[in-house]
Amino acid sequence: MTPATNPAYRRLSVEERRSQLLAAALSLFAHRAPEDVSLDDVAEAAGVSRPLVYRYFPGGKQQLYEAALRSAAEDLRHCFDEPRQGPLLPRLARALDRYLAFVDEHDTGFSALLQGGSVVETSRTTAIVDGVRRAAAEHIFRHLGVTDPGPRLRMTVRTWITAVEAASLIWLDEDKQPPAGELRDWLVEQFVAVLGVTAGRDPQTAAVVGAFAGDGPD
Amino acid sequence: MTPATNPAYRRLSVEERRSQLLAAALSLFAHRAPEDVSLDDVAEAAGVSRPLVYRYFPGGKQQLYEAALRSAAEDLRHCFDEPRQGPLLPRLARALDRYLAFVDEHDTGFSALLQGGSVVETSRTTAIVDGVRRAAAEHIFRHLGVTDPGPRLRMTVRTWITAVEAASLIWLDEDKQPPAGELRDWLVEQFVAVLGVTAGRDPQTAAVVGAFAGDGPD
Repeated sequence: MTPATNPAYRRLSVEERRSQLLAAALSLFAHRAPEDVSLDDVAEAAGVSRPLVYRYFPGGKQQLYEAALRSAAEDLRHCFDEPRQGPLLPRLARALDRYLAFVDEHDTGFSALLQGGSVVETSRTTAIVDGVRRAAAEHIFRHLGVTDPGPRLRMTVRTWITAVEAASLIWLDEDKQPPAGELRDWLVEQFVAVLGVTAGRDPQTAAVVGAFAGDGPD
Repeated sequence: MTPATNPAYRRLSVEERRSQLLAAALSLFAHRAPEDVSLDDVAEAAGVSRPLVYRYFPGGKQQLYEAALRSAAEDLRHCFDEPRQGPLLPRLARALDRYLAFVDEHDTGFSALLQGGSVVETSRTTAIVDGVRRAAAEHIFRHLGVTDPGPRLRMTVRTWITAVEAASLIWLDEDKQPPAGELRDWLVEQFVAVLGVTAGRDPQTAAVVGAFAGDGPD
């Protein structure tokens, strides 16, 4: 590491400093509920003064929390980036691997956010989380090749996404058991099973299931 | 209706007055987000003065909301009361019918509560809702005849309960389509499907599925 690239030895640009503060905040929110993290903690973790944190986030903790949440939501959306090539279920499995790695890394912060009841939770933070859910559903429809999902297919995909969230929270609660790989396979199988149920009532879903049933094992 | 039994014509007991105020509050919370309901609205709906509402709920709106929520949670728990007799899936279908009738009746209030982000939501209100979820899971284990559910069966039942909640919220959002009866059948089929997936990995779940597979259609 040379002095020129080590943040401790040079002035950071505004953007770099902001990223550094957000990263420090995220690592704290990952292991403690937002209400148990103070601006002093963030300043200390980033090795800067409290006034500096306020200069970047004049709205204080609420603003910092929302910015950290937006940044985490952005990372979470990247988990869904998956080329639309090859068999469908392995694509889903790879996206779930990235998602579970994200959950693993953000841990308590992820729980606090999704379980609600946090004192820094507002309709704005809820909207950020809902935005990620909507993005996940849109990714799935795109991969399924569906441009205009009907109510039954929509409900199936959205409830499965909620089930994935619930399973990740339970997984964190149960000391990350079963292993992530087993949880991922189970979630993929759940996806196939719940679509299969809807396929019995909905021609659009039946067509989708028919399309990936031909994929075979990867 | 005789004057002696009409609440408008006689003094209510403390318990009756309290119930009347809670019922008025619940009917308002059913159609508006908690933050859009004032104590004046509750007083007006109950046909009493604002000071009387305060006498019963000196903690103001937050206390009234929590009490109304506790009362709704109690009603919701009663949805799960189902004799442990006869084939399992029809028992589940009957409990879901009562649950969906509850969702139908409480409408917006149900959404506001479960979706979070309400200004009157606190860790206490979250705990009340979590208590209902836990009660639902315990009922299911009891009906399945399982006294010590392992992690995989627990995760399956808990994620299905979350999926039921998500489906009810989507259902309210989509003007209660598909009809409640179809939604109920779909949820029962989802239950069978997700347990079926877990049965492939977990002997305890496989035994449970074997037990109700013998029930046949009702």
